[in-house]
Amino acid sequence: MEFEEKTINRQEIFKGHIFDVVVDDVELPNALGHAKRELIFHKGAVAVLAVTPEGKIIIVKQYRKAIEQISYEIPAGKLEIGESGSERDAALRELEEETGYTGSISEIHEFYTAIGFCNEKIKLYLATDLVKVPNPRPQDDDEVLEIFELTYEECLDLVKTGQCQDAKTIIALQYFGLHLNKN
Amino acid sequence: MEFEEKTINRQEIFKGHIFDVVVDDVELPNALGHAKRELIFHKGAVAVLAVTPEGKIIIVKQYRKAIEQISYEIPAGKLEIGESGSERDAALRELEEETGYTGSISEIHEFYTAIGFCNEKIKLYLATDLVKVPNPRPQDDDEVLEIFELTYEECLDLVKTGQCQDAKTIIALQYFGLHLNKN
Repeated sequence: MEFEEKTINRQEIFKGHIFDVVVDDVELPNALGHAKRELIFHKGAVAVLAVTPEGKIIIVKQYRKAIEQISYEIPAGKLEIGESGSERDAALRELEEETGYTGSISEIHEFYTAIGFCNEKIKLYLATDLVKVPNPRPQDDDEVLEIFELTYEECLDLVKTGQCQDAKTIIALQYFGLHLNKN
Repeated sequence: MEFEEKTINRQEIFKGHIFDVVVDDVELPNALGHAKRELIFHKGAVAVLAVTPEGKIIIVKQYRKAIEQISYEIPAGKLEIGESGSERDAALRELEEETGYTGSISEIHEFYTAIGFCNEKIKLYLATDLVKVPNPRPQDDDEVLEIFELTYEECLDLVKTGQCQDAKTIIALQYFGLHLNKN
């Protein structure tokens, strides 16, 4: 059985700052004919499960326009152009910009967020040994953020009440539950 | 502190079968000025953590055009138009079409996959008491799928080796590890 879909033609629909959109005509494997594939290309992102010396998790409250709601999430940010080789630096930068902390980081997972139509890949890091940066880099000027340090149980409540419905944050919290929860 | 971003103008970029694309001009809160938001609107999807009576997890092997790679994932599918009130039916339909099984289902989580720019929401179900359907609904004719029944450890190996880098599947496997793993 063959699986690969070969691109016969690509129509470029949109080139944005956050993502590009194309529609591919593909030749299906096993003589199944042709199909259309609507695709989003994204540069990728990093996210940080940041755990304080007291075992609390750093959570960012922010507005998400795509869902027209406020959302509670772990710190995260898009990769800038040419940054793909240094996701660690990007993770430390986002942590500092959004929370004013720096620390030791190690990779947990990387995953595609919406694999059916989008190539956005998020690299998730664990940050520990957190210390406050004296003069942290400023936040992006189009972001309004509020920062919380919450217990694991408080984070689970945010999930239960629907205030956190963010896939990357759920992955990070489950990781905490599986590997870091001391209770 | 205010969080909400009000839409001043919306530019419609693309209306597709899988998603629509718009660019909004928004008024930022707290007199921060204006910003652009590139947004993807998607009808939503369902996914199923299906566990056999032997405690194995059903995994689908398929090609994902957005990443030009083969991927191992739990069964999933988009909601059809007007299906938003009956995600349970959609979950049972996808399970039957992709695996030939039906069973008892219950909701685990729902989450936004790429909350920064996309409103795709996946409702994740647990399916147990699986039985083979005598004449299952056929697979979609543009999908090539291979089905596996794998132990939790075999699934973790797929994650470790990078053959599964799919967020919804990682959420499902971590849920299994937290709540269903008997070892």
